[in-house]
Amino acid sequence: MKSPHLAPLPLAKVYQLIEPGPVVLLTTSAGGRANVMTMSWHMMLDFEPPLLACIVSNRNHSFSALRRTKECVIAIPAARLARLAVKIGNCSGRRVDKFEKFALTPLPARRVSPPLVAECFANLECRVVDAALASRYNLFVLEVVQAWRDPRQKNPRTIHHRGYGTFAVDGRVIRIASRMR
Amino acid sequence: MKSPHLAPLPLAKVYQLIEPGPVVLLTTSAGGRANVMTMSWHMMLDFEPPLLACIVSNRNHSFSALRRTKECVIAIPAARLARLAVKIGNCSGRRVDKFEKFALTPLPARRVSPPLVAECFANLECRVVDAALASRYNLFVLEVVQAWRDPRQKNPRTIHHRGYGTFAVDGRVIRIASRMR
Repeated sequence: MKSPHLAPLPLAKVYQLIEPGPVVLLTTSAGGRANVMTMSWHMMLDFEPPLLACIVSNRNHSFSALRRTKECVIAIPAARLARLAVKIGNCSGRRVDKFEKFALTPLPARRVSPPLVAECFANLECRVVDAALASRYNLFVLEVVQAWRDPRQKNPRTIHHRGYGTFAVDGRVIRIASRMR
Repeated sequence: MKSPHLAPLPLAKVYQLIEPGPVVLLTTSAGGRANVMTMSWHMMLDFEPPLLACIVSNRNHSFSALRRTKECVIAIPAARLARLAVKIGNCSGRRVDKFEKFALTPLPARRVSPPLVAECFANLECRVVDAALASRYNLFVLEVVQAWRDPRQKNPRTIHHRGYGTFAVDGRVIRIASRMR
């Protein structure tokens, strides 16, 4: 039921998207309503199956949906969506339907209930596999169970948040011979 | 006992360095010997006191030193040190004194035993405050207890690892009005 323009991304390549530290969007779905927030506090935990950790503050509306449903989608926006990512981060799903307000296109995911975000160049369907540190640090361990990329978005540049709406955009790409994965 | 060129960085600003997801170096010290590794799997957990999480694989020589001594320094290299960061990541402190091999300049930290790295534009002295997930995920929670920056390195560009020695270097910086810290 996904949009035909999306192509599956091998799970073994997911870390290559998260490890560089981009600003991402996180979608959840609870009570028949989807929500989306902007997030920068995340990291990889393991290559395959791809495990990652993220911080979703208990002050955020998404926290309870994530804790209860144990499902989310991490969608990665290219730099042209930077302004949108800031707007999404500056309002709460408690008061607004952000998909409607920002004219985002939700797409059905394959393995989880929260929607993909069609405008993003990658979408990672995730399940919460460990919430042991959710109370103490708002930390959730996620397993990526299905990943998608948009082949029409070539060489997307991501954004990296330096605080207070300042972002570094990806610049040149360098390649250095390395034995590290 | 620090080098006179380093200036203290307010702890409230530490997240602005880690949140963008740069490749960092991590120094440890055990048995009178300092070691350094390259690391990309880290994230912020809280603003102040600055808490962060990082993954140090138990296959790395640094794992046991970090677990035992509960101290480390996170040093952030600018892009001109990318080649060095790769070399540091491609050999093990089990066999090599990396500070000597790569002519790195260790500087005494103020509050922890592992050294600062003089060549880096920022150095964060850290204590392990939670190792509950160290066995399961190699995850350490660190508190930054002292932070330094090198005022001579203006507007440093950091690097973001995309796997196999490919890095995105920080490009242009954009500023968007935001209510988010």
